[in-house]
Amino acid sequence: MTDLSRRLFDELESLVLIDPHTHINPHSPASKTLADIMGYHYYTELAHSAGMPKAYIEDKNISPKERVGRLVEKLGDLSNTIQVSWLMEIVREFFGFQDDAITAKNWEKLYDNALAKMQQADWEQQVLKHSKLEGIFLTNDFDDPLEGFDTKKYIPCLRTDDLVFHFEKPATRERLAKATGIEATSAELLRSAIGKLFVHFKKKGARACAISIPPTFTPTKVGSGDAQKVVELAAGGKPLSADQSAQLSQFVFWTLAEFCTEHALPFDLMIGVNRRVYEDGVYQGQDLFDKRVSLLQYKDLFNAFPKVTFPISVLGTTSNNELVSYAWIFPNVVTNGHWWYSNIPSYIEIDTRSRLEAVPRTKQVGYYSDMYKLEFALPKFRMYRRILAKVLAEDFVIGRGWSETKAVEFGKQVLRGNVETIFKV
Amino acid sequence: MTDLSRRLFDELESLVLIDPHTHINPHSPASKTLADIMGYHYYTELAHSAGMPKAYIEDKNISPKERVGRLVEKLGDLSNTIQVSWLMEIVREFFGFQDDAITAKNWEKLYDNALAKMQQADWEQQVLKHSKLEGIFLTNDFDDPLEGFDTKKYIPCLRTDDLVFHFEKPATRERLAKATGIEATSAELLRSAIGKLFVHFKKKGARACAISIPPTFTPTKVGSGDAQKVVELAAGGKPLSADQSAQLSQFVFWTLAEFCTEHALPFDLMIGVNRRVYEDGVYQGQDLFDKRVSLLQYKDLFNAFPKVTFPISVLGTTSNNELVSYAWIFPNVVTNGHWWYSNIPSYIEIDTRSRLEAVPRTKQVGYYSDMYKLEFALPKFRMYRRILAKVLAEDFVIGRGWSETKAVEFGKQVLRGNVETIFKV
Amino acid sequence: MTDLSRRLFDELESLVLIDPHTHINPHSPASKTLADIMGYHYYTELAHSAGMPKAYIEDKNISPKERVGRLVEKLGDLSNTIQVSWLMEIVREFFGFQDDAITAKNWEKLYDNALAKMQQADWEQQVLKHSKLEGIFLTNDFDDPLEGFDTKKYIPCLRTDDLVFHFEKPATRERLAKATGIEATSAELLRSAIGKLFVHFKKKGARACAISIPPTFTPTKVGSGDAQKVVELAAGGKPLSADQSAQLSQFVFWTLAEFCTEHALPFDLMIGVNRRVYEDGVYQGQDLFDKRVSLLQYKDLFNAFPKVTFPISVLGTTSNNELVSYAWIFPNVVTNGHWWYSNIPSYIEIDTRSRLEAVPRTKQVGYYSDMYKLEFALPKFRMYRRILAKVLAEDFVIGRGWSETKAVEFGKQVLRGNVETIFKV
Repeated sequence: MTDLSRRLFDELESLVLIDPHTHINPHSPASKTLADIMGYHYYTELAHSAGMPKAYIEDKNISPKERVGRLVEKLGDLSNTIQVSWLMEIVREFFGFQDDAITAKNWEKLYDNALAKMQQADWEQQVLKHSKLEGIFLTNDFDDPLEGFDTKKYIPCLRTDDLVFHFEKPATRERLAKATGIEATSAELLRSAIGKLFVHFKKKGARACAISIPPTFTPTKVGSGDAQKVVELAAGGKPLSADQSAQLSQFVFWTLAEFCTEHALPFDLMIGVNRRVYEDGVYQGQDLFDKRVSLLQYKDLFNAFPKVTFPISVLGTTSNNELVSYAWIFPNVVTNGHWWYSNIPSYIEIDTRSRLEAVPRTKQVGYYSDMYKLEFALPKFRMYRRILAKVLAEDFVIGRGWSETKAVEFGKQVLRGNVETIFKV
Repeated sequence: MTDLSRRLFDELESLVLIDPHTHINPHSPASKTLADIMGYHYYTELAHSAGMPKAYIEDKNISPKERVGRLVEKLGDLSNTIQVSWLMEIVREFFGFQDDAITAKNWEKLYDNALAKMQQADWEQQVLKHSKLEGIFLTNDFDDPLEGFDTKKYIPCLRTDDLVFHFEKPATRERLAKATGIEATSAELLRSAIGKLFVHFKKKGARACAISIPPTFTPTKVGSGDAQKVVELAAGGKPLSADQSAQLSQFVFWTLAEFCTEHALPFDLMIGVNRRVYEDGVYQGQDLFDKRVSLLQYKDLFNAFPKVTFPISVLGTTSNNELVSYAWIFPNVVTNGHWWYSNIPSYIEIDTRSRLEAVPRTKQVGYYSDMYKLEFALPKFRMYRRILAKVLAEDFVIGRGWSETKAVEFGKQVLRGNVETIFKV
Repeated sequence: MTDLSRRLFDELESLVLIDPHTHINPHSPASKTLADIMGYHYYTELAHSAGMPKAYIEDKNISPKERVGRLVEKLGDLSNTIQVSWLMEIVREFFGFQDDAITAKNWEKLYDNALAKMQQADWEQQVLKHSKLEGIFLTNDFDDPLEGFDTKKYIPCLRTDDLVFHFEKPATRERLAKATGIEATSAELLRSAIGKLFVHFKKKGARACAISIPPTFTPTKVGSGDAQKVVELAAGGKPLSADQSAQLSQFVFWTLAEFCTEHALPFDLMIGVNRRVYEDGVYQGQDLFDKRVSLLQYKDLFNAFPKVTFPISVLGTTSNNELVSYAWIFPNVVTNGHWWYSNIPSYIEIDTRSRLEAVPRTKQVGYYSDMYKLEFALPKFRMYRRILAKVLAEDFVIGRGWSETKAVEFGKQVLRGNVETIFKV
């Protein structure tokens, strides 16, 4: 890092954050053992990719400690990955680890030290404070009661994949009926049920509706007759053709967007993931993408819902040029973080540079952690802050003669300010 | 900038340019008020994207000064964009503006200062001289009489979108009949009418034929029977099927390429734009792209017309790897500038680096401004020259041990020399 | 280069290599005249692209020396290309050339000097030693007897394009019958014939099966009835429909993968090339790509053959984000070099950065030369080593605080270690 980048980084590091997308369980937000950290799918899938059998990793008969011991066997082959650099940053920052690598020789001591720390009563608070985090968006199932936690700190978000893509499954319909008291046997009843979910989530302080979407999906408005037909078929447990399934998904999706208008909720779209591409992959390590996807598929949606803000994440850097362009033209399209297969420094840097110079500064959510356990916010946001500091230094302070103060203000807006204004936190 | 880059930049800055693609109106090339500058679609669309209502921006009942005042309200939210950096460079270079930003407090004085300058009788000449511009390619409607201006300085270019994609519209056919004296009621008559346009444009010194093309279009030769049928239908005001419309476009397009051979005119292809994607967008702020386009769609064309040079612009950086490869293989494919959604520094840099190292140096047109008013050539070309200087410094002087003289020669060839040889200016 | 990059580069340069993909003829591996070097398709296609007529380049009535003289006429227009920088590095390293460029005035002397060198009895050994090469993978036709050369140094590789995509051609079937003694008139007989080829290649020390694949191809398992039908049609010289042709290719391809399992051979996939796009191009200068290809097309294959390692090359940098992701998830997918239209420094750098930080370090084959003559390994690998040193310096030593020793170890693993482990050399 140059001195300039370092100064900007230090300023950005001082900022207290709201993390606008995570998978945190608010009833158990911090890790209990190192297995919670090393069990993150990034490590299990990379260990498996490097040759460790799935059964060895996912063996249900082993203790958390044994699981960590097994994963450590593969860390050497993964030492180059940015994901393992997150792990190293976690163990250094939180557990005082000082060796160069986690190995067969030192992992047990690390495990025990970590355990002792995590068993402290205020571990969650320690992590939040050390990570400078004061708000954390959740990813809640549509039937989540949203009770038993501080919804100011752990902010609900209505996740809708199941409704849009799995309404045909009896389990989904049962959960919906149970959550809303409505048997969604017609298009109108389904709409009513969904409306109830929105009321519930809004009452509990939800700040977004969210969904992840396969590259093949194109949202559009379905005629009421067609909608009625496919809902009835699905509700009756009848098989749907591929076209009918797509219509059903489109109808539910469109209905969600309508309620987002009504309830003034941003609709986070995470575009491009194909589920279960690698069928024998580890848990959460089976999904990949097809870069033959275009935001043009969202033309109808963006035009039809001018009052809904769509914070958009794309799975590949290959989609970033489109995302920048669509956010530059559509008032309701906002760039949102760096997702999954584009969440590595080389791609974050390219994508950040283009966004910072071509999308209105009010329309960029710089980063979210996507984490399952609190300890990951620190290394992931720090990775982003390093890149952000570098881009601000090179492209704005040096490239355009901006003052450092002005550059830091821009960085803070992208890191935090826009989260507040866009999600009305 | 490093000292080395600065030295190369200074050399490139000293070069007098011919701008090979603009939308300049030769009867009114320079701005008359600051509203001509700030009314450029980049500012209106970005202001709208950042939340300013279209009606507020496009209100027909307001003065140019009021329009500027309104747009200034949104400049703060756009201060990060490269487009606003062009604006700042214009007001500093041409109007002596010295503040850090254009704000509610200082814009009126700026407006008045600019107005006084623009009202000087030789403003056009001042801008040309200060911008080191001596030739400017136009974008002329096919029925432009091309009279009343110096065609040596403002060089005609036959723009053909209307003919290829809108021959079905009665207005297009009427304009064609009026311009040529030929009612294009058959394929042969349509060909004759197009031939007349070429004769007219060539006589007036046209140096290129040009068109922008949607990602779905694939040029190919249409059989004479099919051509005859679709021209007759269209000329008769009959509705065409989607396939017939495509054939009509293909027939007109192919005919244009034939006349380009006959008249030795390069055919500028600007590939990839979908029109009216954002239906409620501001004027010229509605178009976007679908990255699922390939230059393979142009295989038939490139093979069939070896004598026509095709300077090609692509809308997204996502198409640049293909463009580099096609220009490296096809003798008649030339890389042309950095268009629209790829015309931002981060993408220009990536695209420039790959072109400079993989396409024959004689086959690269480095940049064009695409401007509507003369004042934009300076900041846009300067942006490009900064990047070009950086790439020449890093990749050629440092990376390959080239002398600075040799690097500057290459830069000048890309900036100007190739414009002369390719377009025979 | 910074001092740090230089130190890393020097360490990487000291490494003796095994080149995991070339087109070397083991019976004539080194060049005999400068025409062998300048006749490489990169120079003929670029000279043609820059305007030299194909007939002038490929004239069969001229001597090697005259051919070089002709190509030299165009070198000035190609002096910017990385390919010509390879040529300059060759003539400087091997023939003591000291001028700044090869020109009409100095080429004859260079030709003669080179000839004298190449006529030395141990020229091949000189090149190997100076290039630090000890193993070279070949690209062998399926009916290659693999005799008359040292298969430890020149390592056989079964190239299968003809079998998969040209079994319909009588010549292919005749070659197969001659090589195996089996008339492949049924699916089972075709399978037997292919099996014989594998036995032969394995016996001769083959270390990989390989194929280049058009972007339209999707491997999948074909039912035995369909397979039988299309093989019979093809073997009988009957015309196949497009669908049947595709099935035939799929059947042969799947059979190859089955034998790769049986014989524990990696299956190199070179994905994305369309053949004969530029129909009048020079020899080997006619192929281009369509970026609308996805690794998702290989889903069935990767899932069905967990025991086969697939080292994958992609033709465009546009496919690299997918390749990184698929190699990160699928245990049997390995990244392999930088192929053809992505084999230029700007794209190698982007692609290398992402691979080094997101793919397990054991699953990356850094580079292969793809050369036809031995002299090219030196400049091509040197180009790669420069970039690798830069990325290791910036992203690992500076960016992550790695020691130089650790960075060099990683670099050496990617350059050589993984070639040994993945191909079991």
